Amino acid sequence: MNFPSVKLAAEGQLATVAIGDVETEAGAVIEDVHIAYRRWGDFYGNPHGKNNLILVEHALTGDSNAVLWWEGLIGPGMALDTDKFCVLCTNVLGGCQGSTGPSSDHPDGGKWGSRFPATSVRDQVRAEQQFLETLGISSMHAVIGGSMGGARALEWTLMYPDWANYACVIAVSARASAWQIGIQTSQIHAILRDSNWQGGDYYGTGRSPDEGLAAARRLAHLTYRGELEIDERFGTMAQPGENPLGSFRSNDQRFAVQGYLDHQGKRLVERFDAGSYVAITEALNRYDIGRGRGGLNRALHSSQVPTMVVGVDTDILYPFHQQEHISRNLGNLLAMNKIVSPVGHDAFLVEARQMHHILSNFIALADQTPSITELATHRGNYDI
Amino acid sequence: MNFPSVKLAAEGQLATVAIGDVETEAGAVIEDVHIAYRRWGDFYGNPHGKNNLILVEHALTGDSNAVLWWEGLIGPGMALDTDKFCVLCTNVLGGCQGSTGPSSDHPDGGKWGSRFPATSVRDQVRAEQQFLETLGISSMHAVIGGSMGGARALEWTLMYPDWANYACVIAVSARASAWQIGIQTSQIHAILRDSNWQGGDYYGTGRSPDEGLAAARRLAHLTYRGELEIDERFGTMAQPGENPLGSFRSNDQRFAVQGYLDHQGKRLVERFDAGSYVAITEALNRYDIGRGRGGLNRALHSSQVPTMVVGVDTDILYPFHQQEHISRNLGNLLAMNKIVSPVGHDAFLVEARQMHHILSNFIALADQTPSITELATHRGNYDI
Repeated sequence: MNFPSVKLAAEGQLATVAIGDVETEAGAVIEDVHIAYRRWGDFYGNPHGKNNLILVEHALTGDSNAVLWWEGLIGPGMALDTDKFCVLCTNVLGGCQGSTGPSSDHPDGGKWGSRFPATSVRDQVRAEQQFLETLGISSMHAVIGGSMGGARALEWTLMYPDWANYACVIAVSARASAWQIGIQTSQIHAILRDSNWQGGDYYGTGRSPDEGLAAARRLAHLTYRGELEIDERFGTMAQPGENPLGSFRSNDQRFAVQGYLDHQGKRLVERFDAGSYVAITEALNRYDIGRGRGGLNRALHSSQVPTMVVGVDTDILYPFHQQEHISRNLGNLLAMNKIVSPVGHDAFLVEARQMHHILSNFIALADQTPSITELATHRGNYDI
Repeated sequence: MNFPSVKLAAEGQLATVAIGDVETEAGAVIEDVHIAYRRWGDFYGNPHGKNNLILVEHALTGDSNAVLWWEGLIGPGMALDTDKFCVLCTNVLGGCQGSTGPSSDHPDGGKWGSRFPATSVRDQVRAEQQFLETLGISSMHAVIGGSMGGARALEWTLMYPDWANYACVIAVSARASAWQIGIQTSQIHAILRDSNWQGGDYYGTGRSPDEGLAAARRLAHLTYRGELEIDERFGTMAQPGENPLGSFRSNDQRFAVQGYLDHQGKRLVERFDAGSYVAITEALNRYDIGRGRGGLNRALHSSQVPTMVVGVDTDILYPFHQQEHISRNLGNLLAMNKIVSPVGHDAFLVEARQMHHILSNFIALADQTPSITELATHRGNYDI
């Protein structure tokens, strides 16, 4: 068969695609949206039917460079084998690593800043769907993601059930829990309370809410990492050269864990925009696959995409019972896997050996399980 | 026998005792310290030997009014039966409910503010020991506390092993974990980042770091309550009359859980001082019963005070494995109890029915178990 040709970015190189306007779930319009992405492995097959495309979805502050944040899992001969599959990873709508977000140029001049509307995970997926359409693609083998990436993967199966043949949903829930909304809002407020925030329009003022962003990250990091792992690494040790037990409290005399968290905060400030952090965190607050679909379980049950669900036993941000809930109610559960680790939520990024098995298993199970399209074909055959 | 008379505050009334200077573990001196307390039930027995005194220790933002925060557990015929026992509850050193803290008058004029040194849990216990000594008491039947109160109870058994005959240590660890230090420091920073903090010397300026204190409390509350309970109560519901799903994010359009946390923050601001919050939270950061005692397990093993250990299955602030650690290593474990609840850490304040059984059990077990003093007497008898 001859398929329409699909032109994709050079292997591993950042490229950007203009996808037009995106109308948000809440009714705002984001004009002239660009989505940045990278690709590994050649595209084979029918862009509107059976092909070898795998869309990998990053977490909150991740980016399109999936081979870096999922090191050892994407490449020739690896679990997501780029000799066989074409792996795409976009930067999320609202992000700051190439896709349109608060720090991007507004069509009317200046940066988007406070003009950037509130987005939801569904808006993120809608933008990705427009992105794939712009590339001339309307079908893929699989969508895979963890944390906010897992939320996108699950929304993909519900918003566009005939686009992804298989899905792998990792370390996420079916909606934001009240606890998540609470802790995420604490992070948003840490940024908003920084006087350099300036209502979100700090771009070009020479002042940016770095302190607020660092505070948000220090807090977030404590939800990404299990208390076991953090305690095993740092306990009550002092930061080398400092004395946290002096006669008076001092910000310069820290426990080792404070030094570690300060470092995490600084690193994020160097690579991430506070406006994007607020925008994407707000999208997580609004995450709810049940909204407008008759509730959570009806929504889950409606999905016919064979879906693998993965969780982490020590995750306090997305506790394992949330993945159990998804798996018990999904219309077409491919498999349920548990990452066992002291690391907590981040284990899906860190436990490379376990993730290798899980993703390899996902690929193998998909091979043995009919997709919706194949099932429809089979049924057709039997009907005759 | 005639025992020296002990004069105590009128039943349930707040009273304050001047205990002289307190020298902190880190070498500072807090001059002219006052400790506030309340009493329920009459004191019987030998103030320097066998008596009916139970010292109840409050948690971080608690106060001496134990019959309020432990409603239904202290009183005539209740688990801590004030027909039988004399229950005392102090306000902690560094607090703001009558005991000397940052908001108290400094002997040299003005408020203590930034002059208030860093204190540890051991300093809190030392102040209480001076307080009891000032009352003419050097022995008690039991010390009981939860959370930071549990830390004080455990330190009592190690600092003054012949003062408390029995101890009940609830929902706490043997030392601050790195995760706790991290999340507690986030709360301290939320206050320090408020421009009204003014280095801790905001008293009398007409500006106080209310916003920072509220932010700290919102965050803390998410560690006091289990995510199950919070989610069951609020889920993704909107705050009545507000729409958290509008086209643009707004602080005034909230999810119900945000309204709940805002309320928690405001309530604390009304009743608590930010300087005290920083001081006492810092004491929790420094909590480590192993310090200077050859490590955690050596310290625990050295205790001969019959001690009951209690934890909550869903506690994310002081996970149950921390109470298991204490109970496995204590020199003289009276019993181990688990509160089963969706509530998380606060369950020891909230699950009145379970706490009734636990505290009643503690009293009954103590009745059947020889104290160190009694054991010493027995041994003396056998030696003869």
